[in-house]
Amino acid sequence: MSNDFASRLERYAELLAVHGLNVQPGQIVNVSAEVCHRELAYLIARHAYRLGAKLVMVDLIEPRLARVRIESSSDENLTFVPQFLPVKYDELVDTTGANIRIVGSEDPDLLADLPPKRVNTAQLAPRRVLKRFYDEGIGLSRVHWTVAAGATQAWASKVFPDMDPDDAFNRLWDAIFVACRADRANCLDLWHTQNAALQRRARELTAKKIRSIRFRGPGTDLEVGLSERAIWKGGRDVSPRGVEFEPNIPTEEVFTTPDYRATTGKVRTTRPFFINGKLVRGLNVVFDRGDIVEFSAEEGEATFAEYISSDPGAKRLGEVALVGVDSPIYAMGHVFQEILFDENAACHIAIGSAYRFCLEGSDRMSDGELANVGCNVSHVHTDMMISSEQVDVSAECWDGSSLSLLKSGSWVL
Amino acid sequence: MSNDFASRLERYAELLAVHGLNVQPGQIVNVSAEVCHRELAYLIARHAYRLGAKLVMVDLIEPRLARVRIESSSDENLTFVPQFLPVKYDELVDTTGANIRIVGSEDPDLLADLPPKRVNTAQLAPRRVLKRFYDEGIGLSRVHWTVAAGATQAWASKVFPDMDPDDAFNRLWDAIFVACRADRANCLDLWHTQNAALQRRARELTAKKIRSIRFRGPGTDLEVGLSERAIWKGGRDVSPRGVEFEPNIPTEEVFTTPDYRATTGKVRTTRPFFINGKLVRGLNVVFDRGDIVEFSAEEGEATFAEYISSDPGAKRLGEVALVGVDSPIYAMGHVFQEILFDENAACHIAIGSAYRFCLEGSDRMSDGELANVGCNVSHVHTDMMISSEQVDVSAECWDGSSLSLLKSGSWVL
Repeated sequence: MSNDFASRLERYAELLAVHGLNVQPGQIVNVSAEVCHRELAYLIARHAYRLGAKLVMVDLIEPRLARVRIESSSDENLTFVPQFLPVKYDELVDTTGANIRIVGSEDPDLLADLPPKRVNTAQLAPRRVLKRFYDEGIGLSRVHWTVAAGATQAWASKVFPDMDPDDAFNRLWDAIFVACRADRANCLDLWHTQNAALQRRARELTAKKIRSIRFRGPGTDLEVGLSERAIWKGGRDVSPRGVEFEPNIPTEEVFTTPDYRATTGKVRTTRPFFINGKLVRGLNVVFDRGDIVEFSAEEGEATFAEYISSDPGAKRLGEVALVGVDSPIYAMGHVFQEILFDENAACHIAIGSAYRFCLEGSDRMSDGELANVGCNVSHVHTDMMISSEQVDVSAECWDGSSLSLLKSGSWVL
Repeated sequence: MSNDFASRLERYAELLAVHGLNVQPGQIVNVSAEVCHRELAYLIARHAYRLGAKLVMVDLIEPRLARVRIESSSDENLTFVPQFLPVKYDELVDTTGANIRIVGSEDPDLLADLPPKRVNTAQLAPRRVLKRFYDEGIGLSRVHWTVAAGATQAWASKVFPDMDPDDAFNRLWDAIFVACRADRANCLDLWHTQNAALQRRARELTAKKIRSIRFRGPGTDLEVGLSERAIWKGGRDVSPRGVEFEPNIPTEEVFTTPDYRATTGKVRTTRPFFINGKLVRGLNVVFDRGDIVEFSAEEGEATFAEYISSDPGAKRLGEVALVGVDSPIYAMGHVFQEILFDENAACHIAIGSAYRFCLEGSDRMSDGELANVGCNVSHVHTDMMISSEQVDVSAECWDGSSLSLLKSGSWVL
C-alpha cells in the first residue's frame, strides 16, 4: 500500500463523513465495521469529531463470533438480544443521530456451511428488536445513515480470482475508490453533481405518476404496480433536521416502493447476489398478484427458499429501482459480489421490507394505512438485479399514457 | 510467533474463561480489549460459548478515539455518555453476568501530552454513569469479573527498552505466560493450588482481627487502620450464584478495605505506577487522619495532584494489600509498568474507591453505614506499591496483641 493509498483512504473517509453522513454539530454518530476496517472506521470517526459530533461510537466487529455462537448455542440462547441494543439505536432515532455501516467481510463465506435456519434465526433476532430503528431511523430517515464498503483480501479474491491475493486487494480498493470517485481530488464536487442528476431524474419520474413498470428481456416479463402515493428517490435524502445525507455510497439508482400486491409475471436475475453470505445465481421467480409462487435457481435455491419463508413479507416486493448501463459501475464490468455495488450496475427489485419514505404522507400514516397501499413489511430486504443490455423497461401512467424508460438497458427518458 | 505461541495463547484464553470468569451456562459475558488483542478476545469468547454462555459481547476498542475526542470536543460534549452504556452493564449486574477486561495498550502514552483535566473529565463521565456496575457488579461481586493482560509492542518496549521491538514483544508475552502459569500444561491445576494458598492466608489474617497495619522502611512509616468488620481476601471471590471467579490474573496478594480515617504517617512508593497513562515515580505522601495532606514526586507530581482532586475520596485510602518477595512476579525482577503485574510484586495501598465486599455484612449496609466504618467512596482507584526488601510490615490486633507480618519484604506469618 502506497502513500497514495493513504491519501485516497483519507479522501474516502472525508466523503463518507461529510457527504455521506453529513455529520452535524452535537450529533451522536455510530460507525460499524468488521475489525479489519479499523483504519477506515477511525478516519471516519476523526472527521465526525472534527465536524462537531457529540460522540462517535465505533463498533469493530469480530466476524468469527457469529460463527462460534451459531455453532455452540442452544436454540433459545441463539435468539437472545441484550437490553442495551435497542436503547443504543433508539437514541440515534430520538436525537436524529447518524449511523454508518462499512460492508466488506474478511471472510464472506464464514457462515456458508452452517444450517441456513440457524443463521437466519441468529441474524433476525437483533433486527426484530431494532424495529424502531429500521422503521423510523432508516425507513423515515430520522437517522442520517450511510452504507459504504471497504476492501478485504477474501472479497477481492472472489472479484479477481485470477490475481495474486495482494494484487487483488489493491485492485479492489482501486475499484471502490473509482466507483466512489475518491480517486479524484474534486471528489466532493463530483458527488454534488451526481446527486443533483439523480434527484432531478427522481423528480421527473415522480411527476409522471407511474402506475406500473414493465421489465422485458430473456426469461423476464414482469409487471410491478405502484400506488398513487409512490415517490421516486435518488441521491441524498433529507432528515427531520432538514439536512441531506447520502444513504448509499456509491449510488447510481432511482427507486421507489411498489404496491407489492400488483406484482405479476416472471423474472430472471441477471447478476448473482448473496443471502447471508450464500450465493444465489440464475434465479427464476414467478410472482402472482404479489407473492412469489414459483422459483428455481442454478445455485442457492435452498438458501432462497429458507429466506423467503423468514416471514410473510419476505416473498413480496419492497423496492423497484432503475439503473442504466451508463452507470460507471456497469461500465467497470466487474461483478463485485456485493449488493452495494452490484445494485448500482443494473435495474433491480427487492423482496422484503419497503422504504416508507417512498410513499407520499407516510410519516402520518398508520401501519394499517400503509398496508392498504401495498407497502410491504418484513424483517428482511434483499435486492436482485434484473436488467442487462437485453432488457427493456417501460411504464404505464395513471393517466393512461405509456412511456419507454430504458431500451436495451439504456435510459431513454 | 511460533506455533508454541498459539498453544500458550489458547491455554491462557482457557485459563481466563474457565478459572478467571468461570463462565456458567446461560451467562451473558462481556469481553473488552483494545483492538490489537482481537485474537485473545476471540479465543476467550469461544471458550465462553463452549461453556454455555448465552451471549458473548466483545468490545474491541480503538484507543485513538479517546484522543481525537479529547482533542476535538467541547467541554459539554466531552462528558456525554450514551443511554445504552448503563443499560448494558446493569444487565450484567441483574443477571450476574461476567465481564473480562484485557489491559495492555498499543500506545500507552497516547494521552500523555493532553491536558490532565480534560483526560480525567472524559474518563470519569462513563465511570459515574456505571456507578451501579462498579458498586454492585464489581464491589459486591454480583458480576464474575476478571482483569488480565495482553502484550503490545509499545508496552514491551517500555519494559525491555534495550531489546529489538519484536524480541521485546515476544519477551513480554513470555513474561505474561510465566506470571500466569500459562506456559505450563497443568496451568489450571497450578491455579487451583495458588488459589487455595491465597484463600488460606486471607482466612488466617481475617481471624487475627487486625486493628492496624504498620509499614516501616526508607521514607516510610505509615499506619493504616482497619474496622472490626475487615475481611481479608485473596484468590477467587464468590458471586451470588455461589460460583468462584478470579478477579485478577495473575494474583499474588491478600488485601482488605481499610478504615480510611485511620491512615496516618508518611509513605514512599517503591515502584513507578501510572495514572491515565502518565508515569508517577518516587512519590512521597503524608496522610493525616485519612487525608493526603502533603506530597511530592520525582516525576508525575502534576498528574497526581490532578488525580487526587477528582473527588473527595480520591485522596483517601480504599485498599491495603500484602505481597511477599516470594511472589514470582517480584522474582522476575521486571517493572512491568502495568498495575496488574506490579501490584503483585509488592505490598500496596490504593487511593480511591474501596471494595465493599471486604467488610463483613456490607451487602446489607446502607451507604451511610458504610461511611461510618470508613469505607471510602470515589470514582477512581489507583494502587501504589510501597514495599521492598527494605520494608517491614507489622500488625496490632483489636485484642491488644501485635504480630510481625513481613520482615525485609518476606512473609513471617
